[in-house]
Amino acid sequence: MKIGILTIGNELISGRTADANASFIAREVNQEGWSVEAILSVGDDFAKIKDRLNYLLSMTDAVICTGGLGPTADDITSAAIAAAFGLPLYTDENVLSYIKEIFAKYNLRWIENNAKQAMFPQGARVIANPVGTAAGFFLKPEGKLIFVIPGVPGEARRMLTEGVLPVLREHFPQGQLHVAKQTIKTFGLSEAAVDDALKNIDFNSLGVSVGFYPVFPENHLVIISREKTPAEARDKLKKAQDEITARLKRNIFHYGDKMLEEVVAGNLLEKKLTLAVAESCTGGLIASRLTDVPGSSDFLERGFVTYSNKAKMELLGVPAAILEKHGAVSEETARLMAEGARQNAQTDLGLASTGIAGPTGGSQEKPVGTVYLALADAKNTICRHFAFRWDRRRNKLVFSEAALMLLFDYLSSAEK
Amino acid sequence: MKIGILTIGNELISGRTADANASFIAREVNQEGWSVEAILSVGDDFAKIKDRLNYLLSMTDAVICTGGLGPTADDITSAAIAAAFGLPLYTDENVLSYIKEIFAKYNLRWIENNAKQAMFPQGARVIANPVGTAAGFFLKPEGKLIFVIPGVPGEARRMLTEGVLPVLREHFPQGQLHVAKQTIKTFGLSEAAVDDALKNIDFNSLGVSVGFYPVFPENHLVIISREKTPAEARDKLKKAQDEITARLKRNIFHYGDKMLEEVVAGNLLEKKLTLAVAESCTGGLIASRLTDVPGSSDFLERGFVTYSNKAKMELLGVPAAILEKHGAVSEETARLMAEGARQNAQTDLGLASTGIAGPTGGSQEKPVGTVYLALADAKNTICRHFAFRWDRRRNKLVFSEAALMLLFDYLSSAEK
Repeated sequence: MKIGILTIGNELISGRTADANASFIAREVNQEGWSVEAILSVGDDFAKIKDRLNYLLSMTDAVICTGGLGPTADDITSAAIAAAFGLPLYTDENVLSYIKEIFAKYNLRWIENNAKQAMFPQGARVIANPVGTAAGFFLKPEGKLIFVIPGVPGEARRMLTEGVLPVLREHFPQGQLHVAKQTIKTFGLSEAAVDDALKNIDFNSLGVSVGFYPVFPENHLVIISREKTPAEARDKLKKAQDEITARLKRNIFHYGDKMLEEVVAGNLLEKKLTLAVAESCTGGLIASRLTDVPGSSDFLERGFVTYSNKAKMELLGVPAAILEKHGAVSEETARLMAEGARQNAQTDLGLASTGIAGPTGGSQEKPVGTVYLALADAKNTICRHFAFRWDRRRNKLVFSEAALMLLFDYLSSAEK
Repeated sequence: MKIGILTIGNELISGRTADANASFIAREVNQEGWSVEAILSVGDDFAKIKDRLNYLLSMTDAVICTGGLGPTADDITSAAIAAAFGLPLYTDENVLSYIKEIFAKYNLRWIENNAKQAMFPQGARVIANPVGTAAGFFLKPEGKLIFVIPGVPGEARRMLTEGVLPVLREHFPQGQLHVAKQTIKTFGLSEAAVDDALKNIDFNSLGVSVGFYPVFPENHLVIISREKTPAEARDKLKKAQDEITARLKRNIFHYGDKMLEEVVAGNLLEKKLTLAVAESCTGGLIASRLTDVPGSSDFLERGFVTYSNKAKMELLGVPAAILEKHGAVSEETARLMAEGARQNAQTDLGLASTGIAGPTGGSQEKPVGTVYLALADAKNTICRHFAFRWDRRRNKLVFSEAALMLLFDYLSSAEK
């Protein structure tokens, strides 16, 4: 099946806002096994919306539109699409009462404009909006399918998954199949290396498709199976997942949609372990990522950003002699920082980073991108050394990722 | 003048990568006073590239294409565009030697494939790539202009500004005018409030246009003037800038492209002041933003992430009685944290945050989004209180922004 995506809004063609929906929709559509013929963005202009929609319909079986469903004067998507097929607009009384209820609930003043959000082209079926007032709809003119959902990304995503994809699956033969999907998140291998590690897996005969999605500094894999029954689909997915796991085990940190910091936070909470962080080159980023997770105050006791040598000595007890002999960026310093953080905070674990984020500060022996990461518990301290080669911001990000991965590996191996 | 944007690449229509170029190009085009008729994305497919290009040309004076200029087999943009106009490809010897030089310089193995990057449609004019091997080109078929530049965002941006816009200006009457542009960055007012504050400025009679670009949690304004001479353009721009400054003075932190942390870092370095940071609710984000700036080790002595009350007491000397009486989220605690950080680090300044990022931990009196920010110097401590209402991540971001703004205001007023 061929799909077109039409994103509507003056903010898109003025460059005021980057399109946050097209890429997400394209990805979901591809994962269903359908192809995206074109993505088109157009302003809130009656004639142009009609023209661009007709162009997309000329090459596709279905078009998914986003945007222009708000209550204000420039929101004209429903009217333009109705006009494209010579349809009048009607008011859906259920949607109208739903919107009025929301206004009452939040004590908002009702303006008659808002009734516009309950108007749809004759013959349209409403797509409910579980997270906002702008309902969507779909139409079936001339054997084609047209979907219209709001441009607000959080609403568009929910409604695509819950309101659009199920209808598409129903209308197209392939749609009779059950779809099972799994995201596998990895860190520490380049995309080429992931590709190489998986090259002997015959995904076709396993009956699954696989997609690669780099999200710096991670690489995500999405495997998908489509089978007659949910059990078959899950079964095939499981086999493919096992094959991938056998090859990438050391680099996989999650099966699903969580972020690395969420996974690590969950593991710490589950094991009831407390943590202190001592950061030099990451400058607070490790602590900031961990505190992005709700409930992190239950495991993160404190953090130190010991940017100066003086701070490393005073707060973490790193001896001046060590800093002088081995340097602030060294395995010795990293280990003492992790141990010092742990002792100072009286936590179960201490995690430390020291390195050179750049752009200056590198040397022949320790170039920009060098980092030492250490993790201390009551008995041992482990240390890892890496040499990355990104710019300052990305070096900080990949340093923090490698530090969280060190913690992840420690917590995982402790399980065994 | 009407412009179309065509972004080319399988990664775009598969949803593997979000389009990073279209929005930037649209913004630059709009700022020149031209309009974007449509943005279209298509895969690396010979026939489809031709079709989509012709469609865009049917409604525009010029089309800017990105992507598909690499050396690999799926990079077919130049060939597809040549074919669209029945033009043969030729090899540009200057570009070929330039690419070979780059390979020699970086000791890369030459593969004959790479010669493809020196091939252009007959009649094309080369657009130099100052930051990569993929040169771009432009064509003038049938009175229209077609530009092709690489999809790598860093390269696309440079080449748009240096290679595409000057040619467009030359070819269109309006292009005879000199363009002067200024970005004005604000924090602390909603977009509607900014709009309201500026409503009495008659930008038309001042001879400038103004654009609004929200970049959470900031609002950026871009003012543009087009005049016969650079001096006139600068002069009009200056007058409009003065009008805006008179109305938004307290909320403007920068005229130009720097980030708030860069501005603050620059001010600290210029005044030779050192800083220590004590963070509770921001969890390391203030320190991380400041350490994103190269050279931050010259002013950031250390940072504390005092997530627990124990850490606030031990590291910053906040008395237990204060925490008990006023709570960790209070003006009293914020002030003592800032003073404690400053004393512990022996720095000129101490900056502190304490608040409730959410989603839990709020109360009637101190709801989620409440934050106290304090700044201490040798003589005084100042404190600000805010009540935001975002989700956890955005609360952290806006808390850190308000903290940096407090520091910015302090450093600016010290100038007087």
